[in-house]
Amino acid sequence: MSIHKKGHSTKTTHENRARMLISCPDGPGIVATISQFLHQHGANIVQSDQYTIDPEGGMFFMRIEFDLLGLEQKIDMLKQDFASIADSFQMEWSIHQLSNKKKIAIFVSKEDHCLVELLWQWQAGDLDADITMVVSNHPDMKEYVESFGIPYHHIPVTADSKAEAEQKQLEVVNGKVDLIVLARYMQIVSPALIAPYRNRIINIHHSFLPAFVGGKPYAQAYERGVKIIGATAHYVTEELDGGPIIEQDIQRVSHRDDVNELKRIGRTIERVVLARAVKWHIDDAILVHQNKTVVFN
Amino acid sequence: MSIHKKGHSTKTTHENRARMLISCPDGPGIVATISQFLHQHGANIVQSDQYTIDPEGGMFFMRIEFDLLGLEQKIDMLKQDFASIADSFQMEWSIHQLSNKKKIAIFVSKEDHCLVELLWQWQAGDLDADITMVVSNHPDMKEYVESFGIPYHHIPVTADSKAEAEQKQLEVVNGKVDLIVLARYMQIVSPALIAPYRNRIINIHHSFLPAFVGGKPYAQAYERGVKIIGATAHYVTEELDGGPIIEQDIQRVSHRDDVNELKRIGRTIERVVLARAVKWHIDDAILVHQNKTVVFN
Amino acid sequence: MSIHKKGHSTKTTHENRARMLISCPDGPGIVATISQFLHQHGANIVQSDQYTIDPEGGMFFMRIEFDLLGLEQKIDMLKQDFASIADSFQMEWSIHQLSNKKKIAIFVSKEDHCLVELLWQWQAGDLDADITMVVSNHPDMKEYVESFGIPYHHIPVTADSKAEAEQKQLEVVNGKVDLIVLARYMQIVSPALIAPYRNRIINIHHSFLPAFVGGKPYAQAYERGVKIIGATAHYVTEELDGGPIIEQDIQRVSHRDDVNELKRIGRTIERVVLARAVKWHIDDAILVHQNKTVVFN
Amino acid sequence: MSIHKKGHSTKTTHENRARMLISCPDGPGIVATISQFLHQHGANIVQSDQYTIDPEGGMFFMRIEFDLLGLEQKIDMLKQDFASIADSFQMEWSIHQLSNKKKIAIFVSKEDHCLVELLWQWQAGDLDADITMVVSNHPDMKEYVESFGIPYHHIPVTADSKAEAEQKQLEVVNGKVDLIVLARYMQIVSPALIAPYRNRIINIHHSFLPAFVGGKPYAQAYERGVKIIGATAHYVTEELDGGPIIEQDIQRVSHRDDVNELKRIGRTIERVVLARAVKWHIDDAILVHQNKTVVFN
Repeated sequence: MSIHKKGHSTKTTHENRARMLISCPDGPGIVATISQFLHQHGANIVQSDQYTIDPEGGMFFMRIEFDLLGLEQKIDMLKQDFASIADSFQMEWSIHQLSNKKKIAIFVSKEDHCLVELLWQWQAGDLDADITMVVSNHPDMKEYVESFGIPYHHIPVTADSKAEAEQKQLEVVNGKVDLIVLARYMQIVSPALIAPYRNRIINIHHSFLPAFVGGKPYAQAYERGVKIIGATAHYVTEELDGGPIIEQDIQRVSHRDDVNELKRIGRTIERVVLARAVKWHIDDAILVHQNKTVVFN
Repeated sequence: MSIHKKGHSTKTTHENRARMLISCPDGPGIVATISQFLHQHGANIVQSDQYTIDPEGGMFFMRIEFDLLGLEQKIDMLKQDFASIADSFQMEWSIHQLSNKKKIAIFVSKEDHCLVELLWQWQAGDLDADITMVVSNHPDMKEYVESFGIPYHHIPVTADSKAEAEQKQLEVVNGKVDLIVLARYMQIVSPALIAPYRNRIINIHHSFLPAFVGGKPYAQAYERGVKIIGATAHYVTEELDGGPIIEQDIQRVSHRDDVNELKRIGRTIERVVLARAVKWHIDDAILVHQNKTVVFN
Repeated sequence: MSIHKKGHSTKTTHENRARMLISCPDGPGIVATISQFLHQHGANIVQSDQYTIDPEGGMFFMRIEFDLLGLEQKIDMLKQDFASIADSFQMEWSIHQLSNKKKIAIFVSKEDHCLVELLWQWQAGDLDADITMVVSNHPDMKEYVESFGIPYHHIPVTADSKAEAEQKQLEVVNGKVDLIVLARYMQIVSPALIAPYRNRIINIHHSFLPAFVGGKPYAQAYERGVKIIGATAHYVTEELDGGPIIEQDIQRVSHRDDVNELKRIGRTIERVVLARAVKWHIDDAILVHQNKTVVFN
Repeated sequence: MSIHKKGHSTKTTHENRARMLISCPDGPGIVATISQFLHQHGANIVQSDQYTIDPEGGMFFMRIEFDLLGLEQKIDMLKQDFASIADSFQMEWSIHQLSNKKKIAIFVSKEDHCLVELLWQWQAGDLDADITMVVSNHPDMKEYVESFGIPYHHIPVTADSKAEAEQKQLEVVNGKVDLIVLARYMQIVSPALIAPYRNRIINIHHSFLPAFVGGKPYAQAYERGVKIIGATAHYVTEELDGGPIIEQDIQRVSHRDDVNELKRIGRTIERVVLARAVKWHIDDAILVHQNKTVVFN
């Protein structure tokens, strides 16, 4: 039994709805072929977004949302049929049923604001996913998280236990979650975790990247005397704070704001930016190409 | 000879590029049919945006930008061939060649900031259109406008001469311009002008509509003590400040800002918002449905 | 025992710090007199803000934050001594000790986002006040609120019981709280409550006032096709949504956002705007003159 | 004779108004002493702002705007009398008469947008200063600038002539201007010019510093895939793009925006940010401490 208001099943179940994400070299006839294919299979396109980096020899990106009566029964055949089209255009592609909610693991350390925001938005029905676990190197939020009925894995990380801890993390999430959200998780994530979750680990960095890479961005921002601070949500790669940027936002500050005040203001930016990025990932709105994102929102 | 830097021919001429705007009741197969049609006619889609208000029985909107080798020779046939498809889906539609630059008349009174902005952006090559005339009820900006090589029509408007002035305006623009921009033109535009230029007259209103309709928005904003002021670009309809909103933007203000300061701050918002709306119109990025806009940008 | 992280006592206790708020007709020597007075009483000014509407015969507003060793023992004398100065300048004035934390009652109906935000900010130590009770016309949030150790008064309001309910509300808060926050409380507050809490009831209105007064702002915003939505925190007066505006903020929306999406986006604006207004009130940063606020922040 | 609308004398002449800027170590009695001093000399404070970095042993900053009947005759005596007070508090201080308009030199290269903006704002009466010359390493804007009646100094800069050019620049401005504005001037300014104009040279950098220092910020921003671009106005020091930041602003961009589009969007941010910084400097609103600014606006 939870003390929290139940809100997370307010979304209409779109049992017949799916989304398709496609990246490929641009060329003639792609849209015609895809839309013809969907039409012939009885699918009705409800939204579609398309973008081409450079019409002459560039990359083509597409996101299509469609309804198909009896999707559950037909989806395997649909994928199978699409594979040959995809091959002929050298597509990277995927199809996601909306009824298959993504499973999320949230990693957190001691600062709770991003976690609280995600849980609140999820509970309010604004994140159409399942938060299936919280992983932390500290025990602090255990009781709070469990009050939502969500399992809490306390995996301490010390200099000595690092390798072991990372192994445990991998065991806990691997195959069980679709997306890992680093909600102010203050440890470096191991390459062993990044590899299987390529473009599926979202971090919130507490600065307007690429300014102030590293661990003390608010202190650096104060030192430099900036008039605006920001936060950046990005996919995690092996390069620290260097992965594809998903979303950024900012707020004005002034000489009156000391480091603590920057942190206070920053907490709200971080919460909002991270929640947007997570929502867009859940909604299959993000494609990654090289080290940049295409966001259809 | 002009004293102004020449910049307005920097855009690459897209002689083979066109844009298609479509609105129709939603239904199965629309995207497939259109993209198939374009593909069969040898056109290559370089960008496309689509939006459906409500997949169940709602309206469908689409903007397609495409390249077609030999467009100039083929466009009449293309339109002719598309007409039957359009009929079967009850489409409202249009095709615009990028090489046919839109002709703009700017209407202005005494405040010059919006006019100056549009002329600067145009000269900088940022507005891909021809500014073919400026119409004003005052003579003040004549010399300035003519220094750009642009004809200036001074048509005074008084209580007595109103009907006559409106007749003159109509004669000056009708059939010669594609878009009328009211750049802080402080007279009510006559229905006789609105009718032939439905959704082709853009006005900048100096408030965040629907707050502060009418002639003294900054005084009203000051009186009400708002903490943010704004500006609104909209298509002109017979209802004062009531037409479809194209773009809005805002800036924070404080108790320190008196009416004059609000006006000063507002001038920059007005300039920026109007220029964006004009650019989107020129770029065929706006569709109007009922009293609202769909902006693909 | 609470499941929530304890954070609300992180602020350094400023036992010797006080804030002074002053409004009076402008005239020569005010600042000199006040600063001289404080200096002679041994107080050290740590921050001061001043604003004059119109130097010629206008109003003067001042906020001073000062430290005074042994404040607790000296404050009564200080006030007594200041009274004669205040009289000679026709000042409205007040002095607040920071160690006397303001007591807040939060009123809420069914929507929980503003309540959750305030409780989270309070718990994080960002609101330097005591939340002493939550009052609601619904029982929904009782368990959640009590998990913070805060009393929850469920006072149902029906057409029949309105007068009685308002009487109960008054009994519950009167003399026990310094500030009432309407955190999406969807009932009209009675004049009997407004009178003793003049400029001490903060409401969050879910639109960019004065646009969309009344109960369905997001539906109205959707209908009008605005490109930006907002929220407004204001003091409550007898005129519906007409009181002095404390803070406003906005976010861009597009044609893609239906009423539900506007509500979702709006919830975050509402939370942030309300929390800012409450913080400024707690920090004695707001003076009210006629129907407008002077905010020193 | 100028083709431009005359607007630059619209400001009421505040012949009896002055502004005082003060920085000093914080300590008891500063405000009392200053306000007492001004009161005794017959001055009426119309606005005052104060800020202390850290009440315990920190720095104190103050800006006071006051009216004094017969200012012209009394100002020398006022300064003389204040000097001993200033000494006792170790103040850095200055007093500026509003009737002594600051003289500005604008440095520009080929990009004209910042220059056009400053000239337009000046002409509109929004910059209360005299633009006394434009200096450029290119001849392009000569005719345009001269049409405002402003002298244009074309001083070419090549690898060979660099030292000579810098010498000429120094001769042209030294002692004749109070403020140098680098309005997208694409040459490094020599230390010989920086030294006499410490905290009196404002540069606009076309990125959100400290991100993207150097000459190609938009290309770097595109490469990194940021979702927001910005501009920064700062005082020029010997460290490239490293001086005290005065103002920053930003605008959202998306994957659709290529480098040219980033530049186009950026031009408007640059214009607005630079014009704000110049206005604040003109209004004596900026104090510099170490490498940071205190802006009272």
